[in-house]
Amino acid sequence: MKKEIGIGLLGFGTVGSGVASVLQQHQEDLTYKLGVPVKIRRVLVRNLHKERNTDLPQELFTDSLDDLLNDESIDIMVEVFGGMEEARVAIEQALQAGKGVVTANKDVMAVHGRDLLVLADRNGCDLFYEASVGGGIPLIRTLEDGLASDRITSLLGIINGTTNFILTKMKHEKKTYAEALEEATALGFAEADPTADVGGIDAARKMAILASLSFSEEVQLDDVYVRGMEAIEDGDLELAEQFGYTVKMAGSAKKDEQGVEVAVEPVFFPNAHPLASVNNEFNAVYVRGAAVGETMFYGPGAGSLPTATSVTSDIVAACRNLLLGVNGKRVHSYQYERKTKTDEQKSARYFHRIAVRDEIGVLARLSAIYSKNGASLATVIQHPNPAREDADLIFITHTISRKQHLDVLEELTTAPEVNGVLSHYRIEGD
Amino acid sequence: MKKEIGIGLLGFGTVGSGVASVLQQHQEDLTYKLGVPVKIRRVLVRNLHKERNTDLPQELFTDSLDDLLNDESIDIMVEVFGGMEEARVAIEQALQAGKGVVTANKDVMAVHGRDLLVLADRNGCDLFYEASVGGGIPLIRTLEDGLASDRITSLLGIINGTTNFILTKMKHEKKTYAEALEEATALGFAEADPTADVGGIDAARKMAILASLSFSEEVQLDDVYVRGMEAIEDGDLELAEQFGYTVKMAGSAKKDEQGVEVAVEPVFFPNAHPLASVNNEFNAVYVRGAAVGETMFYGPGAGSLPTATSVTSDIVAACRNLLLGVNGKRVHSYQYERKTKTDEQKSARYFHRIAVRDEIGVLARLSAIYSKNGASLATVIQHPNPAREDADLIFITHTISRKQHLDVLEELTTAPEVNGVLSHYRIEGD
Repeated sequence: MKKEIGIGLLGFGTVGSGVASVLQQHQEDLTYKLGVPVKIRRVLVRNLHKERNTDLPQELFTDSLDDLLNDESIDIMVEVFGGMEEARVAIEQALQAGKGVVTANKDVMAVHGRDLLVLADRNGCDLFYEASVGGGIPLIRTLEDGLASDRITSLLGIINGTTNFILTKMKHEKKTYAEALEEATALGFAEADPTADVGGIDAARKMAILASLSFSEEVQLDDVYVRGMEAIEDGDLELAEQFGYTVKMAGSAKKDEQGVEVAVEPVFFPNAHPLASVNNEFNAVYVRGAAVGETMFYGPGAGSLPTATSVTSDIVAACRNLLLGVNGKRVHSYQYERKTKTDEQKSARYFHRIAVRDEIGVLARLSAIYSKNGASLATVIQHPNPAREDADLIFITHTISRKQHLDVLEELTTAPEVNGVLSHYRIEGD
Repeated sequence: MKKEIGIGLLGFGTVGSGVASVLQQHQEDLTYKLGVPVKIRRVLVRNLHKERNTDLPQELFTDSLDDLLNDESIDIMVEVFGGMEEARVAIEQALQAGKGVVTANKDVMAVHGRDLLVLADRNGCDLFYEASVGGGIPLIRTLEDGLASDRITSLLGIINGTTNFILTKMKHEKKTYAEALEEATALGFAEADPTADVGGIDAARKMAILASLSFSEEVQLDDVYVRGMEAIEDGDLELAEQFGYTVKMAGSAKKDEQGVEVAVEPVFFPNAHPLASVNNEFNAVYVRGAAVGETMFYGPGAGSLPTATSVTSDIVAACRNLLLGVNGKRVHSYQYERKTKTDEQKSARYFHRIAVRDEIGVLARLSAIYSKNGASLATVIQHPNPAREDADLIFITHTISRKQHLDVLEELTTAPEVNGVLSHYRIEGD
């Protein structure tokens, strides 16, 4: 029986220092739960000479990964570097060295997760990654264990704190995109380079991870349809509000007999839908199971301590397995063949905002494009656009295929009455 | 290595038949996950001759518990009888026979949970009870594993589907209590005898289970302050609405240095609070942790399949442990001494509705009772009561102690201007 469990911390940024702080603050509780203390043995950093606000002794810090790999007192490596190649290599080497790994790295897990999990299995090591999705919300564990007996049929949620923070500030405080982004950066909710967040890539990585796990089949990052916040046109938020909707960057994943469909994009939620009122940096994910029906999990999607809590709960799980001698016993193969839906098989309701020449008969002529494509309309409204000389036509469809949606948009683009397709949204949760 | 895992099902009512159905429908997935099939070997029922709509062969059914206890092919007993003594004895005997136990029984777990968990530890068996709280929401597992590294500081939630269904129908469809209860019974959301639900006892049992687990100290059923739905007076729901609140039966648990405070009672939630819009049979629980901050878990709180999903996920966990040979390895002792708060230490905002003689100066004289007791008032409103000749005075306090709240109510009761204390509520989530 081990007398102590040794941790090697890879990185000491926002999350890394949070993990050190949670381990320190809850030391007594954790020792009670596990029966043995958990100790940080070494911390890998890039710059040894940087000033750090920490109680950890300076001699624990090193800039050499080998110092951690060769340290036999380290049982579990905690990867909180972020980024891709350096982190992937470190995880790989840690597993090859027979050490358990806990990571918060969605970039690595979305692309190399399966290979690394198989490597972990082969080396008899645990590889846990709860913190890669949903900050402090224990989503991965819920999908793996809490709903283990059910067949998950869909996921729908807000899983990027940065874009949700920005959209909340734009809607509720009428800030511009630039002002809201600046505030998010100042509060530490946005990275110095926010491209991955606002472009939807961050959320797409998380959806690939969640969908693969939920459906037990490979969902590659490329399988995720991604539209970023740049798709949101000036005036769209107000327009959504007039029609009773709230614009959110949302991730969705569905599986039926035809296959899997995963997307990240700005969507319209009816205001009464609970996801419409998930604000600021909070995340929330609806999980629908064949037997359980609808469940929802909500919590802080970002921030040092929430993410550190997820990392540390993974450390506790890895410690338990180590102490019981059952580390690396989960099999991570997929039960099902990868099968993605075609655009003909995907279906949704859509909101189209079209700039048209303000002339008699335009509404009827454009509506005809929808019916020609078999796309049934729920609402058509002509909306004056004071900023321009033309008018906006708003089309809200009934449920149509994504193919119909794209075909209609293409035809609209070339119609002589149309000055441009201003924006279009999927409507969710109706 | 076992080739198959055998289940003994104790009870074949709503939940029991749901478990059989989930095991059957997801058989392929479960076999894939576990590597071996899970099979129901025997089903204990009270009446062997009752007509049952099931695919299970008739010879599996028995009315003798010994048939299950003595069956060596049964590894895990699933107790879905409900009720108290018979279930407790069956769980005890199953554990003594070295079988793992999965139970949905909050009555037993709230009162005998600790003894049974210790017995399970001693016999090297697992005892899982996810389905005893929150129907299909994996709450217990989240508190035990997902938030394992955090220190839980409070719980606040709606954890009784029956009362929430009734209150939803009363508020949104203006049904009477009797009509709403009748509908709940017809839909299977209320027991034939709804006393435990509407009286708050069912929720109190769940809160005792959740609080004990969250705070790692003994919270006895008697420690839970309970007020049932009978505390809700005619007109209270409408009155709440006028003041921007929604009445919900809620469970709350808090822990700080002074001790623990657990309650189940009708409370006022501000309409903007997410729990105010948790409707019908749905449950939702806010869990606040020192590090993670605020998380929330939402899902169906009742119903055959949701509850069966929780039971079956517990079966999966017990199977995994059995297959790995690590069953019964969780230690279930409490880390902290039991310490409950006094009424002086409990604090909240309160809403008081007082029937008074409609005469000059009454408002000032009664307000003086509050200030005499050091209870600071946020709002005082005289509210005409067309149904009676007197008037209602509404007092909304700032945060005061429970002792002050009780002292004020006692003094009001004996004041000559007061015809009666009509109702009073704690205000939560403000």
